[in-house]
Amino acid sequence: METLYVVKIGGNIIDNEAKLADFLQSFAALPGNKVLVHGGGKLATQLAEKMEVPQTMVDGRRITDAETLKIVTMVYAGDINKRVVASLQSHGCNAIGLTGADGNAILAHKRDKGGIDYGFAGDVDAVNAALLHALLSLKMTVVLAPITHNGHGQLLNTNADTIAQETAKGLSSHYNVQLIYSFEKSGVLLDANDDNTVISTIHPAYYEALKAEQKIFAGMIPKLDNAFAAIRSGVEKVIIGKAEELPALIAGTAGTSIVHE
Amino acid sequence: METLYVVKIGGNIIDNEAKLADFLQSFAALPGNKVLVHGGGKLATQLAEKMEVPQTMVDGRRITDAETLKIVTMVYAGDINKRVVASLQSHGCNAIGLTGADGNAILAHKRDKGGIDYGFAGDVDAVNAALLHALLSLKMTVVLAPITHNGHGQLLNTNADTIAQETAKGLSSHYNVQLIYSFEKSGVLLDANDDNTVISTIHPAYYEALKAEQKIFAGMIPKLDNAFAAIRSGVEKVIIGKAEELPALIAGTAGTSIVHE
Repeated sequence: METLYVVKIGGNIIDNEAKLADFLQSFAALPGNKVLVHGGGKLATQLAEKMEVPQTMVDGRRITDAETLKIVTMVYAGDINKRVVASLQSHGCNAIGLTGADGNAILAHKRDKGGIDYGFAGDVDAVNAALLHALLSLKMTVVLAPITHNGHGQLLNTNADTIAQETAKGLSSHYNVQLIYSFEKSGVLLDANDDNTVISTIHPAYYEALKAEQKIFAGMIPKLDNAFAAIRSGVEKVIIGKAEELPALIAGTAGTSIVHE
Repeated sequence: METLYVVKIGGNIIDNEAKLADFLQSFAALPGNKVLVHGGGKLATQLAEKMEVPQTMVDGRRITDAETLKIVTMVYAGDINKRVVASLQSHGCNAIGLTGADGNAILAHKRDKGGIDYGFAGDVDAVNAALLHALLSLKMTVVLAPITHNGHGQLLNTNADTIAQETAKGLSSHYNVQLIYSFEKSGVLLDANDDNTVISTIHPAYYEALKAEQKIFAGMIPKLDNAFAAIRSGVEKVIIGKAEELPALIAGTAGTSIVHE
């Protein structure tokens, strides 16, 4: 099977024009099959402020009322997604930007959890692997915005990490999938305050040992649990590290690799 | 060759939620290959007002400065395009929304005409018929937002009528293309004030006669010139009429058909 890179970039890259430009250039240079998943960063919050639509966050998740849904759709699927696509095109990378509604790429349902009304927030039900495989086979690079739909006409604001993970899992029957999560730090750190203590490889038994010795920063545990869930679901490898180091992350000379054994 | 319908809807439909819902339901019900091109309506102007970005129009064209480009990209490619796609999906029509940057669908250049600086306004250079044909062959309905790119990373605000016409022309080697322009009136009228005087069919000789007798409303002449240019470039038929009457326009029982002879 061919290799597919599913790369997720977060707000720290999206919000910084120079960093984003550099990242897109190195992403465009990656050979072969690629999917890019982007988050939203601070741009949606800034537009909401300008439009005087108050924003509520619960546990780091935005409560998405109807006005906020319009704002995130405009910012994520309009401004960010199309700037990213146009930039990739300028680097000779034939990108196509999609939300989950486009081609029914990602079906979701309105979140209903823990008694909190998250509004128009979506939890993913299904990734349309056949569509994504067809587009990749046309030699296109898919750029996913974190907006999905419920199939009944409702758009839904959806967590980009989850979209990346579900996409990687969904495509693992077609490709050897490497899932790259980029964030602010250089990788999973033994000492959360020292960026030079990156753990290069974690397999399941080592992860259990690290957790038992409480050597994993609590904030990393959900991310790592998700990473291990992904490799149990067919993803070849999950890599966690800095977007600025993308080529080295792919080469295995930077970041943390989460592997089967 | 199979038939392809390229349907352009204007602001009067986009701005009216109930009309848009009805239109999308009848559009979704059209059999076979379809492309929908939408304009922007008043929503971009409203957002610009809210964001206090002053708008300048020259000859009905928006002067697109950098802030305005961001606004139209958010409104056209984000809000409108994704609402349309999600609605079509809910009617069982597998829609995929694109700008000209996506898959390099429509390449354009910054307009440079008549000494007026239109800002980031694009004139179309090329429609990527191979891409659109491939997506249509995957049984998807393409929904085009009036945003293109120049291939060097710059998005461009582009007239939706022109996108519809160039798309129809570009796909005429793959399909028998019928290009439907929807607007406020029931068709081309003999008496501009009487919606019951629709001319059902206009061929080139009749058009010359109507113009010679000054029976065509001046505002219609550029639209009709474009329609005849389209059929000279391989488009089978151009239909002008009300979006509310889409099934009748297709059936030939409403609107004005512009034909070869």
